[in-house]
Amino acid sequence: MRLILAQINPIIGDISGNTLKVLKGIEHARQQRADIVVFPELSLCGYPPQDLLLLPHFIADINHALQGIILASVGISVIIGLPRQNAQVGEKPIYNSAAIIENGFLLGFQDKMLLPTYDVFDERRFFEPATDTRLWHIAGSNVAITICEDIWQHSDLLKYSSYQRDPINELIEKKPDLAINLSASPFSQGKFPLRLSVCAKAAITLKCPLVFCNQVGGNDSLIFDGYSLYVNAQGQLVDFAKGFQEDFLLVDTSLVSVPKNLEIDPIEDLYHALVLGISDYFKKSSFSKACLGLSGGIDSALVAYLAVEALGKENVLGILMPSRYSSEGSIEDALKLAEHLGIETHQISIENPFNSYLELLSPYFEGLSVNTAEENLQARIRGMILMAISNKLGYIVLSTGNKSEMAMGYATLYGDMCGGLAVINDVTKQQVYALAEWINRQQIVIPWNTISKSPSAELRPNQKDSDSLPDYAIIDTVLQAYLEEHQSPEEISRRFSYPLPIVQDLIKRIHANEYKRQQAAPGLRVSEKAFSVGRHFPIVQQYIK
Amino acid sequence: MRLILAQINPIIGDISGNTLKVLKGIEHARQQRADIVVFPELSLCGYPPQDLLLLPHFIADINHALQGIILASVGISVIIGLPRQNAQVGEKPIYNSAAIIENGFLLGFQDKMLLPTYDVFDERRFFEPATDTRLWHIAGSNVAITICEDIWQHSDLLKYSSYQRDPINELIEKKPDLAINLSASPFSQGKFPLRLSVCAKAAITLKCPLVFCNQVGGNDSLIFDGYSLYVNAQGQLVDFAKGFQEDFLLVDTSLVSVPKNLEIDPIEDLYHALVLGISDYFKKSSFSKACLGLSGGIDSALVAYLAVEALGKENVLGILMPSRYSSEGSIEDALKLAEHLGIETHQISIENPFNSYLELLSPYFEGLSVNTAEENLQARIRGMILMAISNKLGYIVLSTGNKSEMAMGYATLYGDMCGGLAVINDVTKQQVYALAEWINRQQIVIPWNTISKSPSAELRPNQKDSDSLPDYAIIDTVLQAYLEEHQSPEEISRRFSYPLPIVQDLIKRIHANEYKRQQAAPGLRVSEKAFSVGRHFPIVQQYIK
Repeated sequence: MRLILAQINPIIGDISGNTLKVLKGIEHARQQRADIVVFPELSLCGYPPQDLLLLPHFIADINHALQGIILASVGISVIIGLPRQNAQVGEKPIYNSAAIIENGFLLGFQDKMLLPTYDVFDERRFFEPATDTRLWHIAGSNVAITICEDIWQHSDLLKYSSYQRDPINELIEKKPDLAINLSASPFSQGKFPLRLSVCAKAAITLKCPLVFCNQVGGNDSLIFDGYSLYVNAQGQLVDFAKGFQEDFLLVDTSLVSVPKNLEIDPIEDLYHALVLGISDYFKKSSFSKACLGLSGGIDSALVAYLAVEALGKENVLGILMPSRYSSEGSIEDALKLAEHLGIETHQISIENPFNSYLELLSPYFEGLSVNTAEENLQARIRGMILMAISNKLGYIVLSTGNKSEMAMGYATLYGDMCGGLAVINDVTKQQVYALAEWINRQQIVIPWNTISKSPSAELRPNQKDSDSLPDYAIIDTVLQAYLEEHQSPEEISRRFSYPLPIVQDLIKRIHANEYKRQQAAPGLRVSEKAFSVGRHFPIVQQYIK
Repeated sequence: MRLILAQINPIIGDISGNTLKVLKGIEHARQQRADIVVFPELSLCGYPPQDLLLLPHFIADINHALQGIILASVGISVIIGLPRQNAQVGEKPIYNSAAIIENGFLLGFQDKMLLPTYDVFDERRFFEPATDTRLWHIAGSNVAITICEDIWQHSDLLKYSSYQRDPINELIEKKPDLAINLSASPFSQGKFPLRLSVCAKAAITLKCPLVFCNQVGGNDSLIFDGYSLYVNAQGQLVDFAKGFQEDFLLVDTSLVSVPKNLEIDPIEDLYHALVLGISDYFKKSSFSKACLGLSGGIDSALVAYLAVEALGKENVLGILMPSRYSSEGSIEDALKLAEHLGIETHQISIENPFNSYLELLSPYFEGLSVNTAEENLQARIRGMILMAISNKLGYIVLSTGNKSEMAMGYATLYGDMCGGLAVINDVTKQQVYALAEWINRQQIVIPWNTISKSPSAELRPNQKDSDSLPDYAIIDTVLQAYLEEHQSPEEISRRFSYPLPIVQDLIKRIHANEYKRQQAAPGLRVSEKAFSVGRHFPIVQQYIK
């Protein structure tokens, strides 16, 4: 059997645009003499559509688009993911479904059975689970069709759910010739090998080849990496689609399958994810230009580089906003970076507004010692300047805080946290350095001095991050163990031999800064547990205090 | 049988503090010679604990606290809500449960069967549903125990879920003598009569009295109004606890039940909800002082009044920040309000920093016409001043935008949207007026001129809200139909005879401003569909454009 896996990049809610992509995919598959063309999970509306799914007219419009796709399926089979009205009586009024279409006829729907409701997923909010699985006789073969999570229970790799049913086990005795999985599986670092092992395990159990068709593209915080794939009945990887771009993967199950390898460099993958996240956030909302503050530090340098890669150098504006506390080196480093990147810069000193605020506030600040109020003023003046230029000239402001800082609250709300997109707020400080070194692997783009100097916010004389924070290696280790593995302070202290008070203090800081993060710009999720999406904590709580 | 319904106000995650409240409740019940004392749903940890539930050490600590409560239950029965480890194999590792304790022994757990996963609820994210219901033999009676949602399916009043099982129907043939419901049912306007009818319907079906014990208090965006209640077997309201404060309701089912009435003034209830929401947000996070900008307009006047009611006049600071566009009347109105409220004020002109920014930005703004960039600058200077005072002096800033403005994006991100709590961002403009009139019912607190003048942001000469927005009556009607009833623009246009383009434009504005609202301060939810919590929309989408 010949299949095309149409790894498309839908726009959320753009039903007509997504339908057009589907029709082009069908046309391409027909040209390739494919028997079946497969599209990703919920690809008619894009994943995740969130509360658009609650609008009855949205579901009706999708059903209308489906009718056009059925008509266009002459001479080919089409399998496409979409939400569909639940004709049965159920807790929820819709299913997360795959329409199975053959030669102008709708054969039926295979609904999703396992509905992830954890981390970034909330499918039980919308969908009714399927009650059973069956085989579909398509193009002369008996095909098992599953949707994303349906094949994950079998792998034993799920962290937050352990479903009572396992569709793969339920399919064994039905003896499929081929298994097809429609997915919208978001990127996180190291996801590909995980996903491959899930697919392999299902193929081995079912004793048949399995094709996995994934969505690609950035949708707000979530980035879908694509890498659709084909494993043979022995669970060996035979072929895969490109990562981080649309692609058509042609699979011919009648040919002898030759195992193939895919070695993924995790840092290179992270780079591609961030670039795709930026470019889709802009493209899909019809913006083209970004501005950001360039401090001479490594975070803003990295974000500037990523923005240039995503949007083109002509669309990125760097704004230097020095103060009395900026070192001469910082300005030099920022200008050197801009020169390497070929981007335009403006230099706007914040001294005048800073003095103007200090004077205005002096009656109220009198007799009180200088504290974060004065530091935040500087960060907020910079935020205001960026926003003014954004408002006047149509730029989206990129904010540049990293995950380690966001965890510690080492950022000014309404200051450096201003922006339409928080590009690296799920990238730890150590990953920031790793990315910078990877970027500089052939030629120096990010100035060496930017990488080698001690991190500083430069908001008071001779300030260093290390004045008030432990080493970032410690912060990042605690973050991982606490956020992703839910270990207690005591467990973390024992495991890494860190003093318990240090671990407790770091975890307290994480919670004390919840109020800031809930007002942060949306961030690009690249880890298994991001702050911006998939983590729901109360602001006011007394468990960690 | 004598029962005490202990309507307590737990703090999220404050296990030891909440346990203390429970122990005091048990002591009170014992003094009242009660057979049973009932506490609300999840009251050992407070509702909603959100992702604290994912921490295994959190669940272990709660179990530890339960052991102490069991020991303290000598001579009485205690029924208390808490999360508990799921000993069975299930999709999720915990249950939302009621511990049933009698005279020093744990009789067992009744788990919640219906897990709301819609709007503000996400219980399927954490909990495994109960598989069955049973009766509990307590204090000589056969008692049916249910948790919150468990009694709602029977009412046919649920909007987002239609469960396959109905615990009330399943209990009929078991013939309980009494039904007890543990709840954490959040306030929204008009909720009491709805809740009463749910309780009444269950009591009538089960042919036995029903007591409903609700949580009270504000937890971030959610406000729990209390109003625990007792209905007899005929479904008549016999007694109820206070609204918006802790209370113990003594119920004696052996006495003849005399029906009672509770007439609730929806505006008065809204007032109490907002005051409780503010005071608990502050108290539970150990803050006492609030500051806010006083513009002379009705929104800030209302928020100032509510803050004084919640925190005391000595803890509220009003800051007037006039500009070249402020009318003389605005300053007078703001000062008059402050005088009526007895609060301190500062007056800080924004002219100097405004000029300083305009000068700084003139090279980049040259030749471009004045637009929202200049308006936003003014709002952001005000935000910065408020935040500087907050940072220096320990105030929490209250933001003052209403729901109608937040819907339309008629607010400046990082400007008037700055704050720790957005007090009225779920209160429509029309409700703002209704509240102001209710507040002034006996004496003028909010100056008449503040109420009677046309709404204006005063960010450019002679600006009025009506320059760029339709009448607030139209906005609020469309909001209700679109947000709460999910009607399409066409349906709304037909229903209210509004021109379709106006309706479409309003709905487009709602979606175009999603990016702003996702960075808003947490707001107090008082309607069935708030922006700040329980509504999840993509920022980048093309369905409504």
